[in-house]
Amino acid sequence: MNSRRGLVAVIGCGLIGESWAGLMTAYGHDVLAWDPSHKALDGFVKRVGAARAQAREAQPGLEAGEGAVEVVADVADAVRHADWVQENAPESAPLKMELYDRIEAATAATTVIASSTSSLTWSELSPNLRHKNRFITAHPFNPPHLMPLVEIYAHTPEMGAEAARFYQALGRETVLLTRDAAGHIANRLASALWREAVNIVAEGIADVASVDAALVHGPGLRWSVLGAHMAYHLGGGAGGIEHYLRHLGPSQERRWATLGNPRLTPEVCARLVEGVRAEAKGRSIRELEAQRDAALIRVLAARRGGEDAAG
Amino acid sequence: MNSRRGLVAVIGCGLIGESWAGLMTAYGHDVLAWDPSHKALDGFVKRVGAARAQAREAQPGLEAGEGAVEVVADVADAVRHADWVQENAPESAPLKMELYDRIEAATAATTVIASSTSSLTWSELSPNLRHKNRFITAHPFNPPHLMPLVEIYAHTPEMGAEAARFYQALGRETVLLTRDAAGHIANRLASALWREAVNIVAEGIADVASVDAALVHGPGLRWSVLGAHMAYHLGGGAGGIEHYLRHLGPSQERRWATLGNPRLTPEVCARLVEGVRAEAKGRSIRELEAQRDAALIRVLAARRGGEDAAG
Repeated sequence: MNSRRGLVAVIGCGLIGESWAGLMTAYGHDVLAWDPSHKALDGFVKRVGAARAQAREAQPGLEAGEGAVEVVADVADAVRHADWVQENAPESAPLKMELYDRIEAATAATTVIASSTSSLTWSELSPNLRHKNRFITAHPFNPPHLMPLVEIYAHTPEMGAEAARFYQALGRETVLLTRDAAGHIANRLASALWREAVNIVAEGIADVASVDAALVHGPGLRWSVLGAHMAYHLGGGAGGIEHYLRHLGPSQERRWATLGNPRLTPEVCARLVEGVRAEAKGRSIRELEAQRDAALIRVLAARRGGEDAAG
Repeated sequence: MNSRRGLVAVIGCGLIGESWAGLMTAYGHDVLAWDPSHKALDGFVKRVGAARAQAREAQPGLEAGEGAVEVVADVADAVRHADWVQENAPESAPLKMELYDRIEAATAATTVIASSTSSLTWSELSPNLRHKNRFITAHPFNPPHLMPLVEIYAHTPEMGAEAARFYQALGRETVLLTRDAAGHIANRLASALWREAVNIVAEGIADVASVDAALVHGPGLRWSVLGAHMAYHLGGGAGGIEHYLRHLGPSQERRWATLGNPRLTPEVCARLVEGVRAEAKGRSIRELEAQRDAALIRVLAARRGGEDAAG
C-alpha cells in the first residue's frame, strides 16, 4: 500500500469507523481497518466507498487523489505502520483501554492514538497508557464524513495543535477543549436541548413533530449560521451581549428555573416513539438518512458561499 | 390604500415590527403601522423596504405584487379596517392589555389580534379581552422576514387553523401549541441549550468562540435539516427511537444529571462579554447581522432544493 498522505488505522468498523474511512480516503489517506467482529466487516469496503463518494460530493474540487482502504485480520497489522490511529470501539472504558494496550505494543511511541469517544473522557481512558501525550480524544459529529465538527481534547498544547492540523486537512472544523468533560461540548448542548424537547412533549405543550419543526425552522436554522452566544449578542440590539445580559439576564435565569426535568418513564417513551413514528410518515431509517445526507450536502455548499457570521 | 391581499395593522415598530411589515408587504399585504414612539418611526419605512427586499430575495418567484406600508398617527387608525392585527409591543402584560382595549374599541369583533410575544402566554394576555377567541399568540423567530418559524397558540382549533393558513400564505412554517407555555417551544429549547452553553464557559471546559463553533458545525447544522427527536431516531440504528430509548435512555438521564446550572454572576457575564468580543473579531453588530442574513438566505435556498428529513 503506497500512502500518499499518511496511513491511518481505523479501529472499529461500525457507523463511525466506516464514515471516518470514507472521509480519510476521500482526502487521499490510505486506511487499514480492523474490527473484531466479522459482521461489522461484512460489506465494510462498499459502505466506505459510499461515504467517500458523499464526502467528495460535499467538498468539490478536492485535489488529493482517493486513498485505498483495506481490512486486516489483526489490530497489530492495522496500526504497525500507521501515522494516525482513529479508534471507534464501543463506549466502554475497559474495552478501549485493553485495545490501547495492544495498539501501544505494536506502534511507535509517536503515533497519535485518537479516540472518537462521545461520552468518555481523556482522563478516564488514559491512565494505563505508556505514552500519554500522544493520546487524544477527537469526537466527530455523526456522520463524520459530512458533519464538519471534530472536538479535540489533548494533554499538551502541541498535541492539540497537531490534531487540529490533521483534522483541518480533512476539511473539518476543529474546536479544542481546555478541560475534558463527558459529552465534550456538542453532546452536552444536544443533551440539554433534548431534555427540554422531551419535557415539552411530556407536559403536553406540543407533539413530537411540532417540537422538531419548531427547532428546524427556528433555532436550528439560526444555529447553522450563528452560535448561541453570538445570537444573544445580536439579540441585544446596538448594546450587544452586554446590554442583553444586563437587561435580559435576569429573565433568562427565571426562564431556566421553569424548564423541565423530565424522566424517561414508559409513558413518556411511548409518546416519543409514537410521535416520531407519526413524524416519519412511513419513511424508513435508510430513507430518512438519505434525505438528511442530501440536505446536509446542500446546506454545506450554501454555507461555503460566504463567511459564517460565527466565523 | 387598495389592499390586494388584506390589510394588516402592525402595532409596535421595533425590530420585529419592521421585519413583519417587510415580510407582509413582500407577500402583497398592505400595512398600516403605528408606534407611540416617534423615535421608533424614524426611518421605519426605509427599514421595512430593506426587509422586504431580503424577504423577496429569500423567496424568489413570489407572484404577489408588493404591498404598501404607511405610518399612521393613532392606533385606532391603524386597526380600524384591518383584517389582521400583529402586535409587537414591549414584553409587558399590562402595556399589551391596555393596547388590546384600544384595539378592540376600534375593530370589528372578527378581526384577528395576534401577539408576537416571545415570553408571555395567551392566558396572561387574554383575561380582559371582550372577544377572546379572535386573540392568538403568533411568535416569530427573529428576524421574521427570513426565519420561517411562527409558533401559534389559539384558543380554538378553528382559530388555530385560520392562523396557520394566514402565516403559511406568507411562506412561514407554522407549529401549533396544544397548551400555552412561557417561551412557547423554540425559546424554551434555545434557553435550555444556552444554559449549558453558559455552563461550559463558566466551568472552563471551552471558551465562547469554541462553544459557538461546536454548535454551528455540529448540532446546529444537523438541526437545520433534522429535529432533535428525529436525530435520536437515526442515532438508534435500524431499531430507531425505540432501540435508542431502551439502550441509551438511561445514559441520557445520567447525562442530564451532570449538566450545569450556572448563575449569571458578574464574573460569568464578564467572561461571556469578553468571549463574544473575541469571537466577533472587530465586526460590528450591523456587519454580523448582514453576514447572518446573507447566510440564512443561502441556507434557506439550499433547504428548498429538496425535502427536509424533518418534513
